[in-house]
This record gives sequence, structure tokens and C-alpha cells, in this order.
Amino acid sequence: MAKKVLKFGGTSVGSIERIINAAKIIKREHEDGNSIIVIVSAMAGKTNELIDQSKAISKNFTRRELDVLLTSGEQVSSALLCGALNEIGVKSKSWMNWQIPIITEGENTNSRIININKEKINKFISDGGVAVIPGFQGVSINGDITSIGRGGSDATAVAVAKIFNADSCEIYTDVDGVYSSDPNKIPVAKKIDKISYEEMLELSSLGAKVMQSSAVQTAMIHDIPLEVKSTFTNRKGTKIFGQENIDYNKVITGVAYSKDEAKITLIGVQDKPGVAAEVFEPISKSQINIDMVIQNVSSDGKTTDLTFTIKREELDKTIDTIKNNKKIKFKELSFKKDVSKISIVGAGMVTTPGVTYKMFRALASENINILAISTSEIKISVIINDIDTLRAVKKLHSIFELD
Amino acid sequence: MAKKVLKFGGTSVGSIERIINAAKIIKREHEDGNSIIVIVSAMAGKTNELIDQSKAISKNFTRRELDVLLTSGEQVSSALLCGALNEIGVKSKSWMNWQIPIITEGENTNSRIININKEKINKFISDGGVAVIPGFQGVSINGDITSIGRGGSDATAVAVAKIFNADSCEIYTDVDGVYSSDPNKIPVAKKIDKISYEEMLELSSLGAKVMQSSAVQTAMIHDIPLEVKSTFTNRKGTKIFGQENIDYNKVITGVAYSKDEAKITLIGVQDKPGVAAEVFEPISKSQINIDMVIQNVSSDGKTTDLTFTIKREELDKTIDTIKNNKKIKFKELSFKKDVSKISIVGAGMVTTPGVTYKMFRALASENINILAISTSEIKISVIINDIDTLRAVKKLHSIFELD
Repeated sequence: MAKKVLKFGGTSVGSIERIINAAKIIKREHEDGNSIIVIVSAMAGKTNELIDQSKAISKNFTRRELDVLLTSGEQVSSALLCGALNEIGVKSKSWMNWQIPIITEGENTNSRIININKEKINKFISDGGVAVIPGFQGVSINGDITSIGRGGSDATAVAVAKIFNADSCEIYTDVDGVYSSDPNKIPVAKKIDKISYEEMLELSSLGAKVMQSSAVQTAMIHDIPLEVKSTFTNRKGTKIFGQENIDYNKVITGVAYSKDEAKITLIGVQDKPGVAAEVFEPISKSQINIDMVIQNVSSDGKTTDLTFTIKREELDKTIDTIKNNKKIKFKELSFKKDVSKISIVGAGMVTTPGVTYKMFRALASENINILAISTSEIKISVIINDIDTLRAVKKLHSIFELD
Repeated sequence: MAKKVLKFGGTSVGSIERIINAAKIIKREHEDGNSIIVIVSAMAGKTNELIDQSKAISKNFTRRELDVLLTSGEQVSSALLCGALNEIGVKSKSWMNWQIPIITEGENTNSRIININKEKINKFISDGGVAVIPGFQGVSINGDITSIGRGGSDATAVAVAKIFNADSCEIYTDVDGVYSSDPNKIPVAKKIDKISYEEMLELSSLGAKVMQSSAVQTAMIHDIPLEVKSTFTNRKGTKIFGQENIDYNKVITGVAYSKDEAKITLIGVQDKPGVAAEVFEPISKSQINIDMVIQNVSSDGKTTDLTFTIKREELDKTIDTIKNNKKIKFKELSFKKDVSKISIVGAGMVTTPGVTYKMFRALASENINILAISTSEIKISVIINDIDTLRAVKKLHSIFELD
């Protein structure tokens, strides 16, 4: 008998029919003799609806009250799911996080789970019950309702799997796994059967919205096997675990891309310690996220060029921030609005020489110009013109034998 | 400085605009130097929406989970109201009932408040804050979320007013008080400035949906002054307190009516102890509410006729129940489908002779036939043909000088 944590995302409980469907999946797992703890998100669209209401009242809606407001969404889906489980003969009970309790620390709307009391839940599941826990929420040491940020239900699932020492943590969602590229745009993209935590993290950060990154990180640290699978099909999903459990027969696991990027280059920045910090401090204070940063070695030993990418929608704000900050010194600012980032990800590239060269040659053969390059241990990202995106992804997908 | 409990009903917080409006009312009361505790209902329509969802999942939705589900409605409105108060500079904080706690006993969906911890709220309001408490909900001794039934926010308001020893309890709603009759149907109906708890109870039980009856009862027992007033106008509302505080210049305070009644008469029922119980036991077990019951003295000393009224929609079910229960013995069953109940209510009638006669004479002068009569200390109800309802109400409203 295995102990399983099953997490159902917003689309998986997005309607009454879907909640009933999720209950049937849980019943099947329960009848297979597994001990089950369920984590549930708010019904799809609910959290956004509540956020819209809060914004209509105040642009600076009190964070403590925002958490009271938003956590009501998971309360509703938990109760409905329990009702559906009981209706089909599966004994179940919901536990709001303050009832368990799941203790968090940190500020409202962005807290972290630091402890989970196992007593009540353990008793209930060892008596054969299915425990249903709303994701995303928590309670602070002083008894306030807290939340752990958007996508936080994944984090709850992994934290619960860790504390209860679960054999697996299954993430039920609206896609049937992680793909080698976006299946909507690259029809030859294949579902990946097994992927390492590290690759998953790189793909997540590149826009594969399958799982929240910090949850994958926690799973990686505590070596909790994850599985991402669809609520709507019976197909096998994607298993996520440590690299040591994967036989790599391919160098590259997936090709990801994100459009809507913009590139800024500051030409003639002084080449001395602290300059990058001076540039990025005001940008960070303006709540702008920097993605790639590339700085070449200085050719004259005095000045260098600093290139970085940001979300396209933040281009104007970023340029304003730089120009209004007199501390940032440079000769010239150039920018390119319509660029995208293409990345190849694969744990196999660590031990395989020539991957970088193979990527660049493939893009050159398609006459695609590379504007910037950034690499990590298991990822190579390039910035190219937006218009070349799909052509580049298809070429890389094929050349690395992912089709 | 007075301590006030302000309760806002579902329509008073039925939209973002209305929540902002309620916040302004609270701000005004707060700026007048009052110490304020606010009780808030779920946004209008929300509770029904959640009930519909639960019914779509199960006809026997687990009561414990139904309470988890429904109490989310008041959680949302509490948080939004606090956000609106903070936005206009009124320091406020919401307290879910488990955070206070407000302890209840009894079964889920129908529990009673037995204790409220004053500590946190008292500290916060004496520091000048406005405490916002969701109505309708509670927490049981063993830590389950409970609810105190539909309309339960009134009960929360009165219980809070009692425990915190508030100077008044103001019920903000979508009407501007209690009327001498239904103002939608009887245009000459007048708002009542002052009414006794007892009269209010009679009017409530007759369909004046202004306040939940058990809340009025609690207020009566503990002598908590109530005021029902509109959220949408600045007009004075209706004050509800003990009879000793009211100078009655009118014998009758109001004329109420309820259509949708049906009348059943069992002719030739045995006139011996226990017969009425035998008739009503199976009806009660079928969850049918009996309203008026009239039994005449036996003319032959052996049999009598038993008349009672029920909701019209339950007529068929009631007749079936009677016919299927062999224990109930009678000669004949007659029923009348289209009847209504007209009641005059007034604490003044206790000390004024001839009220009954005046009522009957008035109806006779309109050629309205009385099918059954029932009286209490401060109320006289008659059953008449449905078609005569408005004519009867108008005549009584006029004859008792309420126009």
C-alpha cells in the first residue's frame, strides 16, 4: 500500500462535472489500496475573479485581507470535492490549513510553509479516509490566514508529500505531461516520459507552465518523486525525479521558447566592479524582472557592453528607469523590441561535447541570426528575431531527434 | 461614546459599489466617536449559488462540508469590506469565527452560538479599530466549521451585541424599516418608528422578512435595542425594543398577510386525548410545517373537526401523508387550495376591548367570508379566500387607522 499525495489544479476542478470526475480518479486510487491525501486548487478563474474584486475596491488592498479573500476559493473547492467523494461512497473530510495546522512564516500573500501537524490527517487516513486539504493557504504563528502565492497549491502538495513521507506526489492538470516543445505550435512535439528535476526547472522557468518552480525545487531537495498527468485522460504522465534515475538516450530533452521578450544593450558601460549592480538596482526597484544578462569581456579594458532581456511589455518602463537614473553611465542605449528566446534543455549535454556548436550550426543553416547567447550546465539559450521563432524551434526539435 | 454592532445584510454588500457604500456608513459612525463591531452577510445571491453547486453534486451533501462551503461567502464579504474600510482610512481587521473564536454547539448547518471570546476584538476596538466579523458562521468545540442556519447573520449580530454589552445593534438592509403592511402592495402602508419585540416576532413569522425571528427573540430575552434601517437612504429606521418603552397610540401596529396557504379540515375526528398528536406526528415527520391549527369543541361529545393550514405547495404531500397513515381516523377530508392568512398585530390589543369584533365587522362589510380564526395575545389571524386578500388588508389597514 502506497501513500500518495494527489494534487488537482484549477482546471481539474473547474466545474461541477470536473469535480465529480476528480472524485472518480481519487476513488480509483483509493480502491487500489493507496492511502490518499488530496490537495486542491481553487476552481479555474476563481482566484482571478476575487483579485479583480479586490482591485475594484483598492489598488493597495490590505495584504492580510487579500489572503482572507483569496483562500476562500480553495475552501469552496475542498468542500465540493469532499461532497463529491462522500456521494460516491469514499469517506472523506476537508481540513482547512488552520485546522491541521499548516504553519507558515513570512509576509501575507507570499509566505512559506514551515511546519505541518500530522496528527489528525494521519489518524484519518489510517482509518481509511481520504483527507482533502486546500492548497495555497496557511496559517501564521499568530493565527492569521496566509497564502503562499500564485501556483502555491503545487508547493502545498510537495510540502505535504515531504512531511507525510509520501511515496509519490501526482500533479493532476489539464495537460497530460511535459512535452519536448509546445505541442500546440510544434505538432511533432512528444510527451516526455521521464525528466529530471533540474531539466523540469529549466523548462518551467522558460514558460512551460506545468508546475510551479519552487515546488519542483522543494521536491528536488527532498527527492520526492513527482508525476504530472492529465485529469481528462487515462494516459501516463511525465515522471519527474533525480537525474540518477534516468537513462539518457537523448542529449536534449526539450526545446522551449518564450516570445514577448525585448533586448536592451547599454554600449560603453564602464568596466569596473559594481557597475552591473548600479544598472540593475533601480530596475529591480521598479519591479521589472531581468531575464538573461550577457556581458562581454572588455576589449579596451575600460568600457564594455551590457545586454539584457526583459518582458516586452516592460520595455518602455525599463528605458525610462535607466534614463531617469543619473547613476547609470553609458555611451549609448540600443534596444530591440521583437525578439524571442529559444532554449534547448537536457541533462545529457553535460557529458556530450559539441551541443553548442550543433545548435548554432542548425540556426545558421536556417539563416537565423543569433543576437545573444547565454548558457548554463543543462541549458543553452539564444535570443533571435521574433519572426524566426517557430522556424528555429522546429529545426532544433528535429536536429536533436525529438520529433 | 457608544458601542455599536452594525450588521450588513446580503443586499447591503451585494456588489463592490455597495460594499464601498457600507464602508462609508461605517466610517461615519466611527467618526461620530462610536466603538464599532461590524457583522457581515455573504454577498446577495452567493449562498444560493453555493447551495446550487452542492445540490448539483449530491442531494445529501455532507453537512459538515456544506458548512465549509457556505461560510466561504461571509469570508469573502468580510475581507472585501475590510479592504474598503482600510482604503478610506478606517483601520479595520476581519476575524473569521474560528479566530475569535465564536463557539457553537449542535449539529452542522443548524448550530447555536454558545460563547464568544472577547479578548482580541475588545483590544482592537479599544485601540480605535473597526472589527469585522462574518455572520452566520461559527466553530464547534472540536474545531469544525459550523453555520447557524439561513439568516444566521442576524443571530450573530445579536449574540455579539449581547456578549460585548453593546448599546445598540443596527440591522442594515434593503428596506428602510418595518412597515404597517407590505408597501409594495398597500401604497398607504407606513413605516413604523417603534415596535416591540413581540410585535416584531409576530410580523416576522407572518412573512415580514426584515429580521430573523430567533435573533429578535434573543434580543428580547437580553433586552438589546435593535434598529432596522436602510443601507441606501439616510432615513431613520424602525426601533425594536421592549413594550414598556413604547407609548401605544394605536391599537394595531401592522397588518400582515401570507398568500400561498392551503387549508385542510378533517371532519369527524375522534374527540379524545392524543388524537391531534396522532394526526400531526406523521405530517411533521414528512417535514411539512403546520401553521394554524383550529379545533372546535365537540358538539356530540364524540367527534370533532380539526382544521389546519399549510403551505399550498405542500398540500398534495400532506393529503397523501394523511391518507397513507392508517392510524389517523376521520370521516371525511376536505381541503381548500386557494386561501390566504390575514393577521392584525398589535401589543395595544391586550388592553383594548372589541378589536376582534371590529376586525370581523370590517371583513363582513366587504362581504369577505372568514374560513377560520386563530388568536394570540397580540395577534388575530383569519383564513380567507385568496382572491379577497388585498381587499381585506386594505380595509383592515384603513379601519385600524394605519393609512
